[in-house]
Amino acid sequence: MRYTNAMDYSAEALKRHKELKGKIAIALKDPLDSPEKLSIYYTPGVAAVSSYVAEHPNEARDYTWLNNSVAVISDGTAVLGLGNIGPYGALPVMEGKCMLFKHFADIDAVPIVLDVHSADEIVATVKALAPSFGGINLEDIAAPICFEVEERLKAELTIPVMHDDQHGTAIVTLAGLINATKITGRRLQDCKIVCVGAGAAGTAIMKLLYKYAQPEILAIDSQGIVSQDRTDLNSEKAKLLEFTNPNNVSGSLADALKDADIFIGVSKPGLLTADLIKTMHPKSIVFAMANPLPEIMPAEALKAGVAVMATGRSDFPNQVNNALVFPGVFRGALDNRVQHITDQHKIAAAEALAGLVENPTPESIIPSVLDPRLVPTISKVIV
Amino acid sequence: MRYTNAMDYSAEALKRHKELKGKIAIALKDPLDSPEKLSIYYTPGVAAVSSYVAEHPNEARDYTWLNNSVAVISDGTAVLGLGNIGPYGALPVMEGKCMLFKHFADIDAVPIVLDVHSADEIVATVKALAPSFGGINLEDIAAPICFEVEERLKAELTIPVMHDDQHGTAIVTLAGLINATKITGRRLQDCKIVCVGAGAAGTAIMKLLYKYAQPEILAIDSQGIVSQDRTDLNSEKAKLLEFTNPNNVSGSLADALKDADIFIGVSKPGLLTADLIKTMHPKSIVFAMANPLPEIMPAEALKAGVAVMATGRSDFPNQVNNALVFPGVFRGALDNRVQHITDQHKIAAAEALAGLVENPTPESIIPSVLDPRLVPTISKVIV
Repeated sequence: MRYTNAMDYSAEALKRHKELKGKIAIALKDPLDSPEKLSIYYTPGVAAVSSYVAEHPNEARDYTWLNNSVAVISDGTAVLGLGNIGPYGALPVMEGKCMLFKHFADIDAVPIVLDVHSADEIVATVKALAPSFGGINLEDIAAPICFEVEERLKAELTIPVMHDDQHGTAIVTLAGLINATKITGRRLQDCKIVCVGAGAAGTAIMKLLYKYAQPEILAIDSQGIVSQDRTDLNSEKAKLLEFTNPNNVSGSLADALKDADIFIGVSKPGLLTADLIKTMHPKSIVFAMANPLPEIMPAEALKAGVAVMATGRSDFPNQVNNALVFPGVFRGALDNRVQHITDQHKIAAAEALAGLVENPTPESIIPSVLDPRLVPTISKVIV
Repeated sequence: MRYTNAMDYSAEALKRHKELKGKIAIALKDPLDSPEKLSIYYTPGVAAVSSYVAEHPNEARDYTWLNNSVAVISDGTAVLGLGNIGPYGALPVMEGKCMLFKHFADIDAVPIVLDVHSADEIVATVKALAPSFGGINLEDIAAPICFEVEERLKAELTIPVMHDDQHGTAIVTLAGLINATKITGRRLQDCKIVCVGAGAAGTAIMKLLYKYAQPEILAIDSQGIVSQDRTDLNSEKAKLLEFTNPNNVSGSLADALKDADIFIGVSKPGLLTADLIKTMHPKSIVFAMANPLPEIMPAEALKAGVAVMATGRSDFPNQVNNALVFPGVFRGALDNRVQHITDQHKIAAAEALAGLVENPTPESIIPSVLDPRLVPTISKVIV
């Protein structure tokens, strides 16, 4: 794939969504084509199943769709690049995500959009409905609430919970960097990494990179480098200082980028320029993942000396796309009865994903979303 | 159909449920068979749809599955005749109900079982997730909490909410009594009706019968006739006195049944005897709907002089089964954008259901659950 102009799918998407009136539906695993089946699957026969399951709740998944169902839950506060557009606005995205779950991993995912937005209310709602599903995929919930929601749900539920905006992105980013550093002859632990955007995705990326290789990381938000001198940090950003900015430098993105090896952008279009790239180490690595328009367009970045370039877009090479990992992660968690998705799982998934590219090149550090090896390879390491 | 011995479906139900591991699944309305479709149904194309829906939330149903989706919600406190068996125990029943929704009315229904049981918590949870669905079918929630939950949700949501244990049963009972009184030459408004069981179903039946014809009704619970003299009534039972027991009689079931025209049982097996029936008016009408074993078996009741007999069972004639009405009620509510299911809707549904039996006989006062005219006929009157 070469760098081409992006297509605008807006008109076609509106038309097709209006025609379909919903992208997913319920299907019966066995047709109700006889009165006998009504008596087996519903009353009176189902009473025996309900009694058995009530006495053996650990076996509920053997008699219901719990073994294969995931709720895709959003409160609509951080939908794509659109921001806080509410539960109805979020629903088309969640339905689309459920399509991907089914298509890629044969998982039965249900879109749940919430009309509550505080951490307490979201946690209470998800805990209340949790017995209905085999796993919880949190989606498009704004930072910093998303961190508290995920942490509390992981602590209080015994089914896998993953906020995909955080960890899906982090796993793919780590996988891409494993191959990008290989190409440019670097070791990740020796790199200076600048991460622009300290929201859900950025925070999770920095945490996972540090867990994996302890590189030098500088976090940048809209006010500049996250440092000890800042008085405006919320508690999540303050926690970043436990493992970023070891030399406590202050300043702007430009200050941070001097001699950096790696730029990671989960921020805004246009934040990175050719001039800034020229202050980085030669053969730098740029992951410009703002959507739909990246922090810098690939052609401009490559011209300025970048060695490996990734974006979030399907029409450029090296697409950092959550869809590379969430189907396999949940497939593995459901099949292997994993109750908690850990950092070890995420690192194993990133290594498995990176390993699928046998000979990494600047235009091929990440497999295609359509690679049929993805789900079997990743699900195998979620054990 | 003749009165036969009931089959025991327990073993077959356990076997088939374990083989299937879930009776429903998610299906894609259009296969994701090209990268272009990924871009239309998910990112980047879906962003245009989400933006549009966020600005026009009233049109969300035209672009999502809201126009055809219903949540089947239970807290597992009153599952079938099994009682409070919890959310996991409830799940097989809710999945079965979702099968019926799909099979009979092509509605995409999702089972949601809750791990909370107070009215406040159930209401908060359902309100929080309500934007995800086009309608709410409450199911197997114990009385008296079910009344408050349904009333508050109906008042606070603008999508149809129906507690099927109450109103599904009430609609079919009214339909059956319309035809049973015709056969026995009675007018419903002149009848003395004894209703045994003053929980969810019994309360809703009595309310609907009174709304329809203002007959004389006596409510019976485990302590006898619900009367002014009782000091043990909860607020829901006290409300029954607003329209039942006009002469304020006290006493037992036996006292109530003297000269009664109609017995309605939503209580326990064996409560009605041949001797008690002989104290009722000749050619009495008995709806013995305890499940799986009725208050009296049909053969015994008919021998004691009952003219028309109905039960809740599929292996006897005249099955009073919610499945006769809930698919059509929700089909109509979704298609006709009905926000609130009213008493007028319930009466219209009962009359439409009764009208499907062109020549009622003692063994045919209610159509079969498999009658293909049910959904088109009932949905038409939910406007």
